[in-house]
Amino acid sequence: MIRFKNGKVLTLDGGCTVEDSEVWTDGDKISFVGTPTDEQLKDTVFDREIDLDGDLLMPSFKNAHTHSAMTFLRSYADDLPLQEWLFNRVFPMEAKLTGRDVYWFTKLAILEYLTSGVTASFDMYFELDDYVKANLESGFRSVMCDAVSGERDRAAEVEQRYLKYNGIDPLISFRLGFHAEYTATYGLIEEIGALAEKYKAPVCTHNSETAREVNECIERYGMTPNKLFDTLGLYKYGGTQFHCVHLTNEDMGILARRGVYAVSCPASNLKLASGIAPITDMLAKGVQVGLGTDGPASNNALDMFREMYLMSVLQKYRNDDAASLPADEVLKAACSVSAKAMGLDNCDCIAVGKQADLTVIDLKQPNMQPLHNIPKNIVYSGSKQNVKLTMCAGKVLYENGSFFIGEDTKRIYAKCNEHCRKLEARD
Amino acid sequence: MIRFKNGKVLTLDGGCTVEDSEVWTDGDKISFVGTPTDEQLKDTVFDREIDLDGDLLMPSFKNAHTHSAMTFLRSYADDLPLQEWLFNRVFPMEAKLTGRDVYWFTKLAILEYLTSGVTASFDMYFELDDYVKANLESGFRSVMCDAVSGERDRAAEVEQRYLKYNGIDPLISFRLGFHAEYTATYGLIEEIGALAEKYKAPVCTHNSETAREVNECIERYGMTPNKLFDTLGLYKYGGTQFHCVHLTNEDMGILARRGVYAVSCPASNLKLASGIAPITDMLAKGVQVGLGTDGPASNNALDMFREMYLMSVLQKYRNDDAASLPADEVLKAACSVSAKAMGLDNCDCIAVGKQADLTVIDLKQPNMQPLHNIPKNIVYSGSKQNVKLTMCAGKVLYENGSFFIGEDTKRIYAKCNEHCRKLEARD
Repeated sequence: MIRFKNGKVLTLDGGCTVEDSEVWTDGDKISFVGTPTDEQLKDTVFDREIDLDGDLLMPSFKNAHTHSAMTFLRSYADDLPLQEWLFNRVFPMEAKLTGRDVYWFTKLAILEYLTSGVTASFDMYFELDDYVKANLESGFRSVMCDAVSGERDRAAEVEQRYLKYNGIDPLISFRLGFHAEYTATYGLIEEIGALAEKYKAPVCTHNSETAREVNECIERYGMTPNKLFDTLGLYKYGGTQFHCVHLTNEDMGILARRGVYAVSCPASNLKLASGIAPITDMLAKGVQVGLGTDGPASNNALDMFREMYLMSVLQKYRNDDAASLPADEVLKAACSVSAKAMGLDNCDCIAVGKQADLTVIDLKQPNMQPLHNIPKNIVYSGSKQNVKLTMCAGKVLYENGSFFIGEDTKRIYAKCNEHCRKLEARD
Repeated sequence: MIRFKNGKVLTLDGGCTVEDSEVWTDGDKISFVGTPTDEQLKDTVFDREIDLDGDLLMPSFKNAHTHSAMTFLRSYADDLPLQEWLFNRVFPMEAKLTGRDVYWFTKLAILEYLTSGVTASFDMYFELDDYVKANLESGFRSVMCDAVSGERDRAAEVEQRYLKYNGIDPLISFRLGFHAEYTATYGLIEEIGALAEKYKAPVCTHNSETAREVNECIERYGMTPNKLFDTLGLYKYGGTQFHCVHLTNEDMGILARRGVYAVSCPASNLKLASGIAPITDMLAKGVQVGLGTDGPASNNALDMFREMYLMSVLQKYRNDDAASLPADEVLKAACSVSAKAMGLDNCDCIAVGKQADLTVIDLKQPNMQPLHNIPKNIVYSGSKQNVKLTMCAGKVLYENGSFFIGEDTKRIYAKCNEHCRKLEARD
């Protein structure tokens, strides 16, 4: 058992209030929240007592949309026109990726997640055996979703992955999905709908990221991607849709009625000039909105502080209203809604029985002072500098700048740079 | 003498290339840049040798527009409509400020600047004796500009401050200025123009931050603020204009022709929904653009990494062009152009004889890997987490998370929180 004591706690279990309290963990779960009696303390033997010294314990962040292994493309081809970036630089490199590349590039992403207080990623990529290996070796939680694209008759392989990876380990889960409407045929989308029905499972995909994508879908099918997916039964058991930048009122109504989560990626949408998602409109209509970084090729950081800040201020800018999307809502999106959008209902807040996926925020850094309002300090002023500790499933994976993922960081950096050079040289 | 060895150096002296090199400082200046001969090394006695261990030494960032002491308003009244925030929360608190308040709140800002690799601020605020004291005690460099507003007949007090603070210490300088066109009478603006002529000095002020401000100026005078200032002779000896969000082509032509610097504050402009400055248009027309955080009440962080990131990606978004405003230009804006916009021509790059205002960037953090392109890594992925060391005028003020400014951080935090409580209670 581990005891977090002598600090403040933000449980996000209901409200967004900070309390002087303590939290105990037992194995991978939270076993106590509150102020213990002398009796309780006398009866309990702790493996470790962590003195928070006034700092804040809160639920960890969950990165609800990413392509982790794309760390290899960070700063590789920025500041180029979009088409040149994608077709001349990104796609040719991706085509050469091996499982071993993905393994090392994923480990690099996990290091960065931990520095940002993140304990789980919702990942869409290739070479999943190596991806899973990197996560399990590190003790990091991952939800994958299928990235299938192209013609029909691929449902069998999606189903195979769905059955293979679900149940492989408590840290790993897999969701039905496909890359996007614009990279899939009607037949393939139908097949995914049939799988959703067969497993009574939600479906996840890129959705309405750019105006062009939506317009082309309307040209093809006479309806938006959301209307198409709903018509084909993909939303019957819910789902999670990535980006959701260009939505009609009808789209938002569909997402709300079907309980489908939207995941916003504000940094990526800004850098790729995709637009600013109508988050406050979605919330007003009852759509639940989580938060993600997207991949490092288009962001370029894996930094939930940046995403939280942008999630709020871009809405203020878009709505011309400084009161738009307050900090409390943003914190809930990044921790709790994101968890639920990933199917991690047991990782959404600090409460007894929930998974011990936690982070400690250093309040003794100048950007966290004065202490008028801690949630606002985190959302509007917070940075990776404030992450003192990150715990996933009851295990401390990052603390005071050191990593505990069973691999030396310098080796990961060296391997990543070596694999980048090999990739460039490979035919 | 201090020797930085065994690392990479980005001088920003001309280009933006990273080299394996070393830098020596002597007193407050840079005394050597390059690869020393054995002879040179044998002849030199160092007070300290700093092993960079592969990390990057670069010029420090200069925050070219801020109101440092407004740290006391951080997270005090966010998520409120703008008018309520300003008139019901900010102004009443500011009206009660004492010099002692400003002293402590400035020290808090200095701590935060140092964590962000910043060694100088261009500050516009009140209670300057206490402000100067906080800077000098900390060893931090500051350029102030006058914040006068209201009626004419105040030129004498501006002149008095100009003469009083210039020359007080090598770390301190003072520039002619006033709050803004919309808070000054025509008479006062004329007087500032006369002072500019008398001292052949540049003039600094808030300029075209909001569309409303520009429209009201046109209603009043039949011309934009820039045209007005130029007509009244305020730009005759140059100047530095803060924000510059809403500019006409004629405005940009005036700024370019007069060699007047624009300072962009992208985070503040976004959070207050002021807009996105036309930075690429300014650059294309030959206007030099520096970078600043604005005050913590409207930002809320004092974080040049956030500003650099936003400076670039907001232009990509605004221009619908991922190639807009590359990382190299942004780094130069934050280090070199900002320095020049503050009159700190001797703090703009790493070269022999320049001031030793430096920062060390930790490249062994996951967000700085792989090493495809270090300037892009810094601009698109960097955060305060990457600042290992900040040196101002040859003195290390921040290193590995510890501050060396002659005051305990916990005492500064306690004093700031205490003064916040007193301010709220004060009539």
